[in-house]
Amino acid sequence: MLIRPATDADADALWAILEPVIRAGETYPLPRDMDRDSALAYWLAPAHEVHVAVYEERDREAVLGTYYLRANTAGGGAHVANCGYMVAQDAPGRGVARAMCTHSLDRARARGFRAMQFNFVISSNERAVRLWQHMGFDIVGRLPGAFAHPTLGFVDALVMWREVRDGDS
Amino acid sequence: MLIRPATDADADALWAILEPVIRAGETYPLPRDMDRDSALAYWLAPAHEVHVAVYEERDREAVLGTYYLRANTAGGGAHVANCGYMVAQDAPGRGVARAMCTHSLDRARARGFRAMQFNFVISSNERAVRLWQHMGFDIVGRLPGAFAHPTLGFVDALVMWREVRDGDS
Repeated sequence: MLIRPATDADADALWAILEPVIRAGETYPLPRDMDRDSALAYWLAPAHEVHVAVYEERDREAVLGTYYLRANTAGGGAHVANCGYMVAQDAPGRGVARAMCTHSLDRARARGFRAMQFNFVISSNERAVRLWQHMGFDIVGRLPGAFAHPTLGFVDALVMWREVRDGDS
Repeated sequence: MLIRPATDADADALWAILEPVIRAGETYPLPRDMDRDSALAYWLAPAHEVHVAVYEERDREAVLGTYYLRANTAGGGAHVANCGYMVAQDAPGRGVARAMCTHSLDRARARGFRAMQFNFVISSNERAVRLWQHMGFDIVGRLPGAFAHPTLGFVDALVMWREVRDGDS
């Protein structure tokens, strides 16, 4: 697996990853009927540094996941990074999210960020919560009933946080 | 004091409020050198419902403060409102922030929001923290050192939250 910057040529592959995640409406607070252009504009926003995780086999390349990295706020908050990760439907279990998170922490460190914050981790997404905890993120906030899950009803969203410094990846 | 929707004619008055707050860099995570156009574009973003608090004396109207109301996220998170408030430099102590917060909670209720979240209350802004607590907001998250205060160094930012429902204003 290789993680490289996304290019314009990745639009179809990105949409193939984003669409089922958005349509499911279980992990991101995005409109479930969001169209392709809006979704790509959101993911590829000018302030986002976007990478893709790809699997290469002979001449063929399959995009397994994508993440964006950005400053979570500006001004006095600009030393804190924020990321979003999405994994292809047929890719979970292959360590794609973990590899992207490690990569994003390295990128955040290289860009001089001091910490990384996830603003809205859906508590029912237990696999993600466990993975982020394993990656060193703490739950620093709990937003009660902040997410209307399509089948579970109102569930909490979590704010997660970790330091980003040399030598403690 | 009257609280009414902002209009294009309020641009000068809004900038007169925003500029010193932005230049001080003590309460909002915005670039301290943000120019007028960028600041107004941020405050008057299409998704923001913006009000101004005005004091009327004879034919003269003074703008004492302003707030925006928006959905904090979309999709499954769209039932949670977010607001930002700014008070004119010479207005603190006149109850402007409190009046605007009450007004914004009423507006949020009228628009069907179920809760209101403040994403980034600077912990050193003790006056604001106390006021929001008095207005029924709980601290539901603490972001360690998330804000580089121009004189205090790294201080925590708080995530604050309250329900918005009929009859419990």
